[in-house]
Amino acid sequence: MFQITLQQRAASVEALLGNLLSDSPQTGEISRPSRLMAAIRHSVLNGGKRLRPFLVMESAALFKADNLAALRVAAALECIHSYSLVHDDLPAMDNDDLRRGQPTVHRKFDEATAILAGDGLLTYAFELIASEETELDAEARVALIATLARAAGIGGMVGGQALDLEAEKVKPDEQGIIRLQAMKTGALIRFACEAGAIVGRSNFEDRERLAEYGSAIGLAYQLADDLLDVTADASHMGKATGKDAAAGKATLVSMHGIEWTQRQLVGLVAQAEELLAPFGEKAALLKDAARFIAERQS
Amino acid sequence: MFQITLQQRAASVEALLGNLLSDSPQTGEISRPSRLMAAIRHSVLNGGKRLRPFLVMESAALFKADNLAALRVAAALECIHSYSLVHDDLPAMDNDDLRRGQPTVHRKFDEATAILAGDGLLTYAFELIASEETELDAEARVALIATLARAAGIGGMVGGQALDLEAEKVKPDEQGIIRLQAMKTGALIRFACEAGAIVGRSNFEDRERLAEYGSAIGLAYQLADDLLDVTADASHMGKATGKDAAAGKATLVSMHGIEWTQRQLVGLVAQAEELLAPFGEKAALLKDAARFIAERQS
Repeated sequence: MFQITLQQRAASVEALLGNLLSDSPQTGEISRPSRLMAAIRHSVLNGGKRLRPFLVMESAALFKADNLAALRVAAALECIHSYSLVHDDLPAMDNDDLRRGQPTVHRKFDEATAILAGDGLLTYAFELIASEETELDAEARVALIATLARAAGIGGMVGGQALDLEAEKVKPDEQGIIRLQAMKTGALIRFACEAGAIVGRSNFEDRERLAEYGSAIGLAYQLADDLLDVTADASHMGKATGKDAAAGKATLVSMHGIEWTQRQLVGLVAQAEELLAPFGEKAALLKDAARFIAERQS
Repeated sequence: MFQITLQQRAASVEALLGNLLSDSPQTGEISRPSRLMAAIRHSVLNGGKRLRPFLVMESAALFKADNLAALRVAAALECIHSYSLVHDDLPAMDNDDLRRGQPTVHRKFDEATAILAGDGLLTYAFELIASEETELDAEARVALIATLARAAGIGGMVGGQALDLEAEKVKPDEQGIIRLQAMKTGALIRFACEAGAIVGRSNFEDRERLAEYGSAIGLAYQLADDLLDVTADASHMGKATGKDAAAGKATLVSMHGIEWTQRQLVGLVAQAEELLAPFGEKAALLKDAARFIAERQS
């Protein structure tokens, strides 16, 4: 059931993104350069799992929210996620040639186009949520934008990437690693879950509860990722593995070992389930998502 | 009077940006990495003319708008302008070492930090407008964000930069150059003027009028820039000049010559003044701004 719903949600968001990211300019836009749009589509329409969109939509469904509004917010979040990968893959950053088994944007196009594709996707995410076609009142749209910008920006994902650069020079301690990861990968996953509550106009307590659930699975996501970097092989992942160890990079896995990490993951899944308990059966797929994230093999 | 007001507005926006871009995380942010913030401040707090903020604030003043709200929107726009320069200066783009006589961000820090500083500034612009501290109702904030994202994104500034890359391979015709420039530099200047009307909750007609004024002076800005690239020397500009001709780049100046361009500039100033006529004496400084832009020497 979880896998089927994940795939259905992914197909919906992929279809919407395909429409939105066409060469046709939308209201208020002058024109869309075709090579830039091709680079953007190459980065976004890649058959990804669309985990963050799934979280937005399932969280929104808890509150019987408008499905189309949730889908547009999910698509916007996927634009942010994609831009971060395009810029992260650049030669000056991780210098990756492959992403999901395909050439990265700067390899398939060129570096300048990759920089602009990332900038364009980041900007478009806000255009998409702010648009009147996102059928939510202005209060909800602006709350989503404020929360997303905080999660994605200097005090969230971008800040986490900057901390990651610094960590190459001065190894962070355990608290430093936890903070880095909460910013770099945790903040957007937390946003995904909180966004569903905003789209659903939930009360404050439920919004906080969903955000905390998002933080728990965000941490689980990163621990599972670090674990996979140690245990998986590149062909399975569609990208290079073993990079952390080769780079002498400190992770919680390198610090505490595989068994400790697996125990942590079990604890985080339990925590996520506890946070969702008040929603009862309605939250079954979100509970499955927590387990999926903790146990994922790619 | 114009010069004094321009300097006063610049000082206000510089002071606000200095406060906002400190190392202290704001509500909803986890933490701000100090090196990233130093790079961001290096790019933003550079003693620039702050022409776009001036246009936001003077346009808003036509409608007796809240000054602090206009100042925050002006600061957000300057963050967008600064991010675009940081990314534009990167080795894969224009590869510039100097900006306003100072080392560019990737020269003073490093390329990865410059990419992230740009991403962070772009995201922060939306955080700043969306914040409840921007004392405008949600309708106005979300309208500002939608309009800004369209002006700055794939169908506006970023799209214009992508067209600029394509123009290196296939020289655009006159209409192509006009569209490229309307997107690359015109869209943000148009937004600056339209934003003042949104902050001031003007009627639709006045908002359109201000936007059209913005388009006219945006085109004048670019023509003056192309003219300066031909006529000025590098020490005066604080950046490299003569680059367009050296790169064989087609501009309206290279196509029609200096005298034609000067006549166009006179015409655009007259058009700007005509658009402002209904506002009477209140718009005196905006009329001065049009002349300043058309006649600027640096």
